[in-house]
Amino acid sequence: MRTIQRRLPFFTHSFSSPHLPCINSPSLLLSSPSHSHSTFNIRSKSSPIIMAAVIKVHGVPMSTATMRVLAALYEKDLQFELIPVDMRVGAHKQEPYLSLNPFGQVPALQDGDLTLFESRAITSYIAEEYSDKGEKLTCPGCKKVKATTKVWVEVEGQQFDPIASKIAFERIFKGMFGMTTDPAAVKDLEDKLVKVLDIYEARLAKSPFLACDCFTLADLHHLPAIHYLMGTDSKTLFESRPKVSEWVKKITARPAWSKVVALQKQ
Amino acid sequence: MRTIQRRLPFFTHSFSSPHLPCINSPSLLLSSPSHSHSTFNIRSKSSPIIMAAVIKVHGVPMSTATMRVLAALYEKDLQFELIPVDMRVGAHKQEPYLSLNPFGQVPALQDGDLTLFESRAITSYIAEEYSDKGEKLTCPGCKKVKATTKVWVEVEGQQFDPIASKIAFERIFKGMFGMTTDPAAVKDLEDKLVKVLDIYEARLAKSPFLACDCFTLADLHHLPAIHYLMGTDSKTLFESRPKVSEWVKKITARPAWSKVVALQKQ
Repeated sequence: MRTIQRRLPFFTHSFSSPHLPCINSPSLLLSSPSHSHSTFNIRSKSSPIIMAAVIKVHGVPMSTATMRVLAALYEKDLQFELIPVDMRVGAHKQEPYLSLNPFGQVPALQDGDLTLFESRAITSYIAEEYSDKGEKLTCPGCKKVKATTKVWVEVEGQQFDPIASKIAFERIFKGMFGMTTDPAAVKDLEDKLVKVLDIYEARLAKSPFLACDCFTLADLHHLPAIHYLMGTDSKTLFESRPKVSEWVKKITARPAWSKVVALQKQ
Repeated sequence: MRTIQRRLPFFTHSFSSPHLPCINSPSLLLSSPSHSHSTFNIRSKSSPIIMAAVIKVHGVPMSTATMRVLAALYEKDLQFELIPVDMRVGAHKQEPYLSLNPFGQVPALQDGDLTLFESRAITSYIAEEYSDKGEKLTCPGCKKVKATTKVWVEVEGQQFDPIASKIAFERIFKGMFGMTTDPAAVKDLEDKLVKVLDIYEARLAKSPFLACDCFTLADLHHLPAIHYLMGTDSKTLFESRPKVSEWVKKITARPAWSKVVALQKQ
């Protein structure tokens, strides 16, 4: 357990525990997606590929990093195949998975002969490579808008996520591992998150989305951690800030995000 | 002091302490650069701008994040003005600096009417906006190379730096703040760094640089933390791995990087 804790902030895509919910049971693997727009397919060990798909995502629907990539794929309306990684038995720390991602974390993406890891690198690739598909995920405009998007993408990765992921670990994932939430740690992390969200509140008073007038990767990357935190008492930190609250409602209501959340319920 | 520690991993661009070496004393501000290629200028409070420069960097030469940006500017052979931020008195946590970077961390960059923060967003902007200047910092080639560069840029930001920066804090910066290095924390962090460097060793056995055949931002971003760690006992972790050691020698020997290091000695 201590090893898991020390691996923060990567826990949500690198953990393994017998207490992990049965996220890739045969029933899940063989079930059909509940949403009507079937752009994905989940591979079962015992069944052949049901539907041809170029893009393969190796991951699990409850991992924040996997969710980030799935959100981008759904936004782009791309066909993909989700190949579950059995993290309960540590499949992510063994070959053949390590050949896809040497860091032993989910997800990894295969697009033809291209193999990628690191969720934010993958979403950036998806947005650029499939720029003519689905939602743009980037803002059209001058160099200023493009550069500002880079800034807020980095803010999520360097300022928001290291705190938000740890709160999610304390409040949600520790319970799954049979561990106890540390209230002092939560308090300390929430104090830090408040400072970040105050800056977001000021930013969102000037701009409907973090980078510019439209939804970009800078917003999308926040969705997994926000999804988990909005199911905990930490949600008050978001709801008590009008602009942040409005932004959270907007980005979590996106149809593409609903599909990612639906995957967790299968 | 505990506040500083809790701010990890942002300490190297957000600290403030009376123990901080005199990094922006008037003598430094007025001195001329020791290197012959004077593409930069340091502004003094008491003197006018010596040399016209379009790009302004607000930061301090010993901050890892500032160093990252300075390295990119030198690689691109761009003229810039370095405007010291007096972190000893907490200037980075007050206006007017907060209008440049609401997170109160150095650096911030101004290029005409564009203001940016987050060092990796800035270097990416520099590489793209000034693609025809100096070194490329990106690999020419197919989408595969471009996507792989994104992956290794993320690896630095998400896997390497959170560990390496904390070791630098323990081994170097704590002393500056009158704090004591925690040997157990160093041991724990070094155990993690070993795992990352083993992956780097395997990667660099296949590729002369992390992303591809040429020096890119994925390599450059590592330079500040490596610079500090090579001055500590942690250097053995790099030197004991032949390919990593060769890579460290190559990237730290770059003339642009020598200019960044020289700035610290003025």
